[in-house]
Amino acid sequence: MPTVYVTRKVHFNAAHRLHNPEKSDEWNRRVFGKCNNPNYHGHNYTLEVTVAGEPDPETGYVIDLAELKRIVNENVVDRVDHMNLNLDVDFMQGVMASTENFVTAIWHELKDALPAGRLHEITLYETERNSATYRGE
Amino acid sequence: MPTVYVTRKVHFNAAHRLHNPEKSDEWNRRVFGKCNNPNYHGHNYTLEVTVAGEPDPETGYVIDLAELKRIVNENVVDRVDHMNLNLDVDFMQGVMASTENFVTAIWHELKDALPAGRLHEITLYETERNSATYRGE
Amino acid sequence: MPTVYVTRKVHFNAAHRLHNPEKSDEWNRRVFGKCNNPNYHGHNYTLEVTVAGEPDPETGYVIDLAELKRIVNENVVDRVDHMNLNLDVDFMQGVMASTENFVTAIWHELKDALPAGRLHEITLYETERNSATYRGE
Amino acid sequence: MPTVYVTRKVHFNAAHRLHNPEKSDEWNRRVFGKCNNPNYHGHNYTLEVTVAGEPDPETGYVIDLAELKRIVNENVVDRVDHMNLNLDVDFMQGVMASTENFVTAIWHELKDALPAGRLHEITLYETERNSATYRGE
Amino acid sequence: MPTVYVTRKVHFNAAHRLHNPEKSDEWNRRVFGKCNNPNYHGHNYTLEVTVAGEPDPETGYVIDLAELKRIVNENVVDRVDHMNLNLDVDFMQGVMASTENFVTAIWHELKDALPAGRLHEITLYETERNSATYRGE
Amino acid sequence: MPTVYVTRKVHFNAAHRLHNPEKSDEWNRRVFGKCNNPNYHGHNYTLEVTVAGEPDPETGYVIDLAELKRIVNENVVDRVDHMNLNLDVDFMQGVMASTENFVTAIWHELKDALPAGRLHEITLYETERNSATYRGE
Repeated sequence: MPTVYVTRKVHFNAAHRLHNPEKSDEWNRRVFGKCNNPNYHGHNYTLEVTVAGEPDPETGYVIDLAELKRIVNENVVDRVDHMNLNLDVDFMQGVMASTENFVTAIWHELKDALPAGRLHEITLYETERNSATYRGE
Repeated sequence: MPTVYVTRKVHFNAAHRLHNPEKSDEWNRRVFGKCNNPNYHGHNYTLEVTVAGEPDPETGYVIDLAELKRIVNENVVDRVDHMNLNLDVDFMQGVMASTENFVTAIWHELKDALPAGRLHEITLYETERNSATYRGE
Repeated sequence: MPTVYVTRKVHFNAAHRLHNPEKSDEWNRRVFGKCNNPNYHGHNYTLEVTVAGEPDPETGYVIDLAELKRIVNENVVDRVDHMNLNLDVDFMQGVMASTENFVTAIWHELKDALPAGRLHEITLYETERNSATYRGE
Repeated sequence: MPTVYVTRKVHFNAAHRLHNPEKSDEWNRRVFGKCNNPNYHGHNYTLEVTVAGEPDPETGYVIDLAELKRIVNENVVDRVDHMNLNLDVDFMQGVMASTENFVTAIWHELKDALPAGRLHEITLYETERNSATYRGE
Repeated sequence: MPTVYVTRKVHFNAAHRLHNPEKSDEWNRRVFGKCNNPNYHGHNYTLEVTVAGEPDPETGYVIDLAELKRIVNENVVDRVDHMNLNLDVDFMQGVMASTENFVTAIWHELKDALPAGRLHEITLYETERNSATYRGE
Repeated sequence: MPTVYVTRKVHFNAAHRLHNPEKSDEWNRRVFGKCNNPNYHGHNYTLEVTVAGEPDPETGYVIDLAELKRIVNENVVDRVDHMNLNLDVDFMQGVMASTENFVTAIWHELKDALPAGRLHEITLYETERNSATYRGE
């Protein structure tokens, strides 16, 4: 049976700032520049979730994309959309809100909501030009 | 001489919330939903600025796009990029931070920085799906 | 008060064929080529709906985009998405299913669902390269 | 010699429906929802074909993209464009017309038309948000 | 009868440089910067051609888009694609190769190839961020 | 610690031609067609640079994207933007200016400017439809 990789793209938007509370304000301003603005800035994020598997003979689906959408919405989108990553999102507390840390945190929220071994890769675009990819390695 | 419309697209990102301080919190939550989050959310905004005019015979330019970029950066992008529209942007104080009000406010910041009568139209995308256009009417 | 043009983009997909039942099969094949396939073909359509008006002082909205989305879904998307334009869509019966006729038919479905005079322009993309725009003229 | 991966993107559109003839109509409606519409719906498909190899020292090409385009058109696009996947496409007969099954079927049509071992990966987008990738595994 | 605006998008690529031969090399370098490179640079241009008219009752077409594509290819694309605007394109001789002048020159090549009064607007993108629009005024 | 893949997209434009000086003019015209135009043609190139690594606990960054942008600009963009690949770019001399050869040449310019083992993959789009990817293998 073939292994097919199915990808669903979703969108959400959120506010955040980059700030390391264990460092001085001067260090934060120098390292993070405009991204350290204490009043926050924000993004339209695009998230691509890829699930691997063999197509089911009865449906032709690796996974029903309506079901994948529901899982991604329940476990990620509904908890981050129109939110402040630093203040409102439980799974981002105590974590620098970089794209890299955000994409690995999202992986851990999604992994257990899908059948074991099925989540293959997720890519998070912070802007059209900047993205981060995580494969659980 | 022909009239040509020249458009330059720029990008910036910002945090904001929709909140009318003259109304109750309950009214604000009902009317603005998730957009009323007191901790803000944010967007990658795309701004298209269209300038009209006759091409200069010596350069072929309606306006030097490097000069237009400088004008848009100085008068708009540098004042809103990685900012909080509600807290950090002087020309948005006392104004609901809707796409509609933001695009008309940007028009007024740009109009006088360009030769009289040259600014033709600006379109502001809050997301890839939602935008507002203003022509100074 | 300024006039601002607000645009909401929606997506749907549908099957259709181009066929004029008053003409011979040979005429239809010659004029419409592959688009005349009796077994239908299909598209992912993108619809942009533009509404004009003055921003409401209390909300900053020309129209609440969530309300516009509801109106467009109820009057258009729910009636055409995953449908066959020739067989399933009441407002396309007796009409050649060209992009031009489809966009004018959508205009008439939308116009009366919005406050009088507010619908300004709609653009329908059949593919990324082909589109048709109607302004009610 | 370096191994370079060359990708060519092509577009086509088609009608289809998801329907398992071995199951009841009720099962099909429940599992496939709107995608089970007996009158079909359709999509603008985008297909990305990736070929791997060493650049030819005389041409700098892994493969002449004009030749790759001809191979993809002859073996795939000309056989599916403006077609009904369920009724018109020989290599989709007896197969659920899901994106997953369609992308693996396209792989088998393309593989033998290219030099052995050169086809590396194909990705098929059913919509801008949904895609499936196959690597022949 | 309704007036509908039909748009077809085409792509081509070309080399060019901005250089005014009546001015000094120093003037050209100062005014045009990198765009004055004597060895040329280049772009993937996108051209959108909009034709206005009433849909034909027999076809539903304002214009057969296959016919519009043929007209645009014959009169524009075949004469500029993979060309050097300064050296190879007859209708750009003696003209500064700015986007503004190029779009007005294209207008004049297209206007008489279409039925009188039908060409409504053309937009030429030099990059995804820079474009020029001409309406024959 | 997780391995995250961070991608930065940049744009530049350039002129080039495909021509093998060791072959006859007739061979070059037959093999390269329009791409052999002696007066050059050009493209808006898009380059995606992917860097792999573990997020730094103090910053959350695999690499500061502003620093990555500076490295890509200094080592690639500033040396090719608005240039003629055949005449102006030192690292393309003696090399067929195909997308395949260009992407491997860019890899070698970038590899040593980044910490050892960090450059993971680069993809170069010559047009929206054609691209080449190199992973240093």
